[in-house]
Amino acid sequence: MTDETNARPKTSDIQRRGLMLVLSSPSGAGKSTIARNILEKDDGLELSVSVTTRERRPSEIDGVHYHFISKREFERLRDSDELLEWAEVHGNLYGSPREPVEKAMAAGRDILFDIDWQGAHQLQEKMPADVVSIFVLPPTMGELMARLHRRAEDDEETIQKRLKNAAHEIGQWRSYDYVIVNDDLNRAFGAVQAIVKAERLRRDRRPGLFDFVEGLLKETI
Amino acid sequence: MTDETNARPKTSDIQRRGLMLVLSSPSGAGKSTIARNILEKDDGLELSVSVTTRERRPSEIDGVHYHFISKREFERLRDSDELLEWAEVHGNLYGSPREPVEKAMAAGRDILFDIDWQGAHQLQEKMPADVVSIFVLPPTMGELMARLHRRAEDDEETIQKRLKNAAHEIGQWRSYDYVIVNDDLNRAFGAVQAIVKAERLRRDRRPGLFDFVEGLLKETI
Repeated sequence: MTDETNARPKTSDIQRRGLMLVLSSPSGAGKSTIARNILEKDDGLELSVSVTTRERRPSEIDGVHYHFISKREFERLRDSDELLEWAEVHGNLYGSPREPVEKAMAAGRDILFDIDWQGAHQLQEKMPADVVSIFVLPPTMGELMARLHRRAEDDEETIQKRLKNAAHEIGQWRSYDYVIVNDDLNRAFGAVQAIVKAERLRRDRRPGLFDFVEGLLKETI
Repeated sequence: MTDETNARPKTSDIQRRGLMLVLSSPSGAGKSTIARNILEKDDGLELSVSVTTRERRPSEIDGVHYHFISKREFERLRDSDELLEWAEVHGNLYGSPREPVEKAMAAGRDILFDIDWQGAHQLQEKMPADVVSIFVLPPTMGELMARLHRRAEDDEETIQKRLKNAAHEIGQWRSYDYVIVNDDLNRAFGAVQAIVKAERLRRDRRPGLFDFVEGLLKETI
């Protein structure tokens, strides 16, 4: 073997672009539980923490689940192009701050977006090559309703509003790359893990393969 | 809930088109071992047994690893359009019989093709939507040579011919969907499993999702 061989990048060092994993579903289909699980288990993935004008639920922590901000502050961010995408859902505003995403992507880290179809469409249009989109469906509408009640975080009026919107949200499944029916949380979680693992292996996401193969072919045997 | 709900297909019954999983690599990169492992572990996947004019190795079984046929018989199959793809490698002819593949695909089963880049190109051109292609790279050329010697199935002349051809085969990595560097067999196997699992969840491979979602939205809650 020649000296060049030793300079060749190691397999695990093959340079890769970060991917933008978009997870959408109607409220109560289990999206947030799946997102939390995968963030815990996968060191390479970090959450894009959305800004929102919605009121904080008792279980939520500012800066962890969302950045809770005023409508005025939201409009300032949106109008100065500091949001990658934004949407109005159930009368509240949601958006993904641009800066932390761009920093993470540049460093080759993957970002998880827990957003609705409106935001997903905007990201798909802006960065078609980087977005991997997954839609999570409930096994039945009855199960969706049961989960919203079990969660016990919304009043009955809000639950009814969420159910009404669920049908419309579900109608957006066709614009996603992958569809998962969440009839078993572990299985749904395993499905998302497999998708992330596979998408990281896609040739067109790994510019470092050019160097790796060049090194292979230079090797004198 | 209404009666229609009960007529809705179960999650596990969502109809899916079969996929054609193409696994290519230079000789000795571990492709056949990976293929054997995944065929053993995955009931939904079956091997497309190629026809070949090459001589049978002592470890190979006719009808299992290949259908070993004469050059005359091969030419008859090829000229009567009974091969989905064919190629000449190291002076021998290889091809994939059309009939068993079409039967399996129609029944929604997945097929694994252990073929070279020439065959992969032909399948990708004929069925772009159904082909999922994986290229397996060796970690180093030195390791590739060591594996060919360890296999002890070819004479030195054949090994030298295979090494010469390996460089050309490796140069074809750019036309594959996924690239796996086989520096650890278990990890490489896990990578192929994740790719198969993910590709089966792709929306555009599952026409049954239309019925499933229609059923969801019809459900009275």
